[in-house]
Amino acid sequence: MSITRLFAQRLLSVRLQSLTATSHRSVVRPVTPISPLVLHIQPQSKIRYSSKTPKDDPDEMGKQQITLKNVKGSRDWAGVDIAVRDKIFEKITTTFKKHGAVSLDTPVFELKEVLAGKYGEDSKLIYDLADQGGEISSLRYDLTVPFARWLAMNAGVNSIKRYHLAKVYRRDQPAVTKGRMREFYQCDFDIAGTYDPMLPDSEVLALTVEILDSLNIGEYTIKLNHRQILDGLFEVCGVPQDKIRPISSAVDKLDKSPWEEVRKEMTEQKGLDPEIADKIGQFVLKKGGRDLLEELEKTESLASNETIKKGLADLRLLFDYLDIYDVTKKISFDLSLARGLDYYTGVIYEVVTELSAPPAVSQNPTIATKGKKKAKINKDDPDADRSDDDTVGVGSIAAGGRYDDLVGMFSGKAKIPCVGISFGVDRIYSIIRKRLEDSQQPLRSSEVDVYVMAMPEGSGENKNGFLKERMALANQLWKGGIKAEFLAKACPKMQVQFKAAENADVPFAVIIFNEQLGLDTVRIKKLGLRDLPEGHPEKEGIAVPVKDLVEEVKKRLESTTGIEQYISRVKLEENVVTGAESSTST
Amino acid sequence: MSITRLFAQRLLSVRLQSLTATSHRSVVRPVTPISPLVLHIQPQSKIRYSSKTPKDDPDEMGKQQITLKNVKGSRDWAGVDIAVRDKIFEKITTTFKKHGAVSLDTPVFELKEVLAGKYGEDSKLIYDLADQGGEISSLRYDLTVPFARWLAMNAGVNSIKRYHLAKVYRRDQPAVTKGRMREFYQCDFDIAGTYDPMLPDSEVLALTVEILDSLNIGEYTIKLNHRQILDGLFEVCGVPQDKIRPISSAVDKLDKSPWEEVRKEMTEQKGLDPEIADKIGQFVLKKGGRDLLEELEKTESLASNETIKKGLADLRLLFDYLDIYDVTKKISFDLSLARGLDYYTGVIYEVVTELSAPPAVSQNPTIATKGKKKAKINKDDPDADRSDDDTVGVGSIAAGGRYDDLVGMFSGKAKIPCVGISFGVDRIYSIIRKRLEDSQQPLRSSEVDVYVMAMPEGSGENKNGFLKERMALANQLWKGGIKAEFLAKACPKMQVQFKAAENADVPFAVIIFNEQLGLDTVRIKKLGLRDLPEGHPEKEGIAVPVKDLVEEVKKRLESTTGIEQYISRVKLEENVVTGAESSTST
Repeated sequence: MSITRLFAQRLLSVRLQSLTATSHRSVVRPVTPISPLVLHIQPQSKIRYSSKTPKDDPDEMGKQQITLKNVKGSRDWAGVDIAVRDKIFEKITTTFKKHGAVSLDTPVFELKEVLAGKYGEDSKLIYDLADQGGEISSLRYDLTVPFARWLAMNAGVNSIKRYHLAKVYRRDQPAVTKGRMREFYQCDFDIAGTYDPMLPDSEVLALTVEILDSLNIGEYTIKLNHRQILDGLFEVCGVPQDKIRPISSAVDKLDKSPWEEVRKEMTEQKGLDPEIADKIGQFVLKKGGRDLLEELEKTESLASNETIKKGLADLRLLFDYLDIYDVTKKISFDLSLARGLDYYTGVIYEVVTELSAPPAVSQNPTIATKGKKKAKINKDDPDADRSDDDTVGVGSIAAGGRYDDLVGMFSGKAKIPCVGISFGVDRIYSIIRKRLEDSQQPLRSSEVDVYVMAMPEGSGENKNGFLKERMALANQLWKGGIKAEFLAKACPKMQVQFKAAENADVPFAVIIFNEQLGLDTVRIKKLGLRDLPEGHPEKEGIAVPVKDLVEEVKKRLESTTGIEQYISRVKLEENVVTGAESSTST
Repeated sequence: MSITRLFAQRLLSVRLQSLTATSHRSVVRPVTPISPLVLHIQPQSKIRYSSKTPKDDPDEMGKQQITLKNVKGSRDWAGVDIAVRDKIFEKITTTFKKHGAVSLDTPVFELKEVLAGKYGEDSKLIYDLADQGGEISSLRYDLTVPFARWLAMNAGVNSIKRYHLAKVYRRDQPAVTKGRMREFYQCDFDIAGTYDPMLPDSEVLALTVEILDSLNIGEYTIKLNHRQILDGLFEVCGVPQDKIRPISSAVDKLDKSPWEEVRKEMTEQKGLDPEIADKIGQFVLKKGGRDLLEELEKTESLASNETIKKGLADLRLLFDYLDIYDVTKKISFDLSLARGLDYYTGVIYEVVTELSAPPAVSQNPTIATKGKKKAKINKDDPDADRSDDDTVGVGSIAAGGRYDDLVGMFSGKAKIPCVGISFGVDRIYSIIRKRLEDSQQPLRSSEVDVYVMAMPEGSGENKNGFLKERMALANQLWKGGIKAEFLAKACPKMQVQFKAAENADVPFAVIIFNEQLGLDTVRIKKLGLRDLPEGHPEKEGIAVPVKDLVEEVKKRLESTTGIEQYISRVKLEENVVTGAESSTST
């Protein structure tokens, strides 16, 4: 662990050093010089240029004024940002595979009719493709409906554990710095098939805890509810059948708005009898654990309702299984959780962190669900980025539930019960990113292990930078499976080559010193950058025959933890929050 | 290597066995039962159902008739297909990183004006998003223009090696089984920055050979040309400036159509003087290596043209560098190669295999470029799939070139010279897939290493399947980082559990035998499926204490190459075609 610290400190010092030396850093530069903050925190600003038409190109290209920006609510991923994000993907995928999931990849667009009527009030957020002749299609809104469509199309598959990491599209109000995007990643894990009750459901929740703890995401709570309990509750309170989904959506807003507002939406916008609304209010603000479950079981008016009874039985069994997986402490049984989507039929859940709630509330360690300022919707520009709107939080970082009827909606064959969860990686990323910024850990985006360089000889006409020899050495290393680069100039100064290697934090240099060693021998030098006084690269290093180069380099790489790997481990896994420490259930 | 064979044969026998046992294979089934052929070879057939509206859901969902199919020219990736495809991605990415590339991820859509005027005649193939208010955008047509847009937006970046694996979109005529899709993957590698001539260009070509050989793609040729040579040639022949790009596109069709047709397009459709067309014809049918280069250098009429002279100087230098990387033998300098896209300014290249040309021609071992039947375009349905049209081949599997002015078109800052290549993974996949089908290698899509099962006890009411114990064991294995599954039933028969494990080709079983061993000890059993007579799982295996389970399993996994990894190695790397064997340059 002391080595950890040493290494981290040393890399930190390198980073700080290099930050003060940006003027030297223009050569063979990997993407790191762009501050991750620029990529991450600031939505890229518009740049307006009148673009040039290259003389050697007579056609129309680029004659018009071009606004250089990303499409609203979308972003580029580069440099350290993408290195960290891919590390998150890797950890999530590893856990998915650990649970036996296989990969599935569906097209970014689906026939519009496939998506129709699956998303309730949110259907208005679907992106349509222009009708250019042929089929009418839309960008996928999530990965669940395409999965169900695929199951329905492949009659041979009655059960499968599948995972899918891909971007989905929603024309929603963006808040870029909070990871609320219009194009964003979802990482889905679903279990399809007929099994004994609550077994797949409990595995999904166990997997969720496994993943979030491995990501060191900090405190989080899994809000849990059951559609049948909620729907039965509405029945008992006297909500008409045709109002159940709309009222359900209203209840779902209790994590953002106080009861008074939700009640107003129910009665004024959705025409619910105020008495019924108040009855609902008595229940939907309750949350807890097994205790709440038992309270409901004892409440005659509810327990006598068949739908509710089924839901309660499910949850009782589920809690038993969650105990076996040792994740019950993460669960908050929350009657206000409704989930907007139409297709859920059983258990539903949503993972929230302190950052999920608006800043105004997040100070409160237990994730409160009441008493927030009303969100100021910018009426002038519905597309406005709301990153600075302190009534907007990051939102839930993962959510899902059971949907037993979705596949049946598409297919003639017997319905296939499904349960799953979707992780919102952009939001998870922005939480981890913030922590990394606070911790000021040094980060690296390139993975190059060896920089091939040469001490030039002669001068003027006879100056020799040993270009072809450097190319041949690099080629030898590549063929040997080693990540290597060289400076693509005929005769660069030694110092410039060292700078280039430093800038990419490359751990080893392979150096040609023809005068001393000839061309059949090179030096391998560990680039401990602290040891290099600016502009005075040391000359020592270990001489090895060129024919043994690959072998010699590999020997040294094995004894060095790859820096990129190393930092990643520091980044995501140091002080992993254990379940016990981070329990926030109430 | 004999072990390789043994293992492969044994897995083959398993596969054949299991093919005859599909009736037993419905439990906890990974996606493998769908024949990859169904997913791969047959474009999924339409299925028409009137979808049911689930009783517990009162809203509109699924009331309409739904056609279950993928959007034209797109496909799902599942099972063995995606396992093989991801292996291809992995090999390509590894090589990209070996050359120092960092990852970049841009949105699937760009502002329409960003794409405008970059793709010449192919611009008509761009997918537009519907105007739903806000910005007008289109799906990306390639990964190059978004990369240039990103470079222009990030003033801090003057040089970068970047790679990008993502789907791109073209409303072209699909030929699904030949990997000609409307949504398809590109794997791009580009070097941006000001370096000495031809150094980045030669590295891109070296990397291309490295990747294709590592994929054991079979025979292939890298067609090479230079935009300045081609444009200068058109000047010399007397083509008016405003006709150069259109005539260039016509020439590019010489790999599909005979000269007579191309000449007709030039003269009749594009109004070129027949004499000029004939002059062009004298040159553009030439191909070769250095020999052709020298021939052109000796041709006074050409060598005196400044533009051509620049191009020839580039190629001379390039050939020297390609010799150092030992890839010259893969190159065919081909004056008919023009590349449709507008933005190329220097060296251009395209990789073709025997399958690239239409079937009618591919018998011809050297990839001929003349004398083909005319493609029968289905006038009634431009969307028709042309998989069976024998005038359509797989096309090029990789292509690219130098584009020095594209970034400058977007940005006010000094232009950034770029060169790169794009690999068409769907086409590479369909070539490898075909080889795998012919070789009948056994394939596996799940990666699970351990199946947890229990010998049930008692009967009726007292029947015990040790569900909670199986769950706890699985949880212990997951926490230990081991890929494990169990049958999600309360009390399944032993035989059913073994079948489930067999069906996923899981290498190890962990078995609870309470009567013999109690619950603190389990047996670890290697699942050599040949040794299991149908329905008579053997009872032996090694007894280990539950507390040591993770350790004991890991020990055994280390000594077994993970099956999935193993097969992958057999799949892609056995008899790698060496440069020498596969040289097809003429």
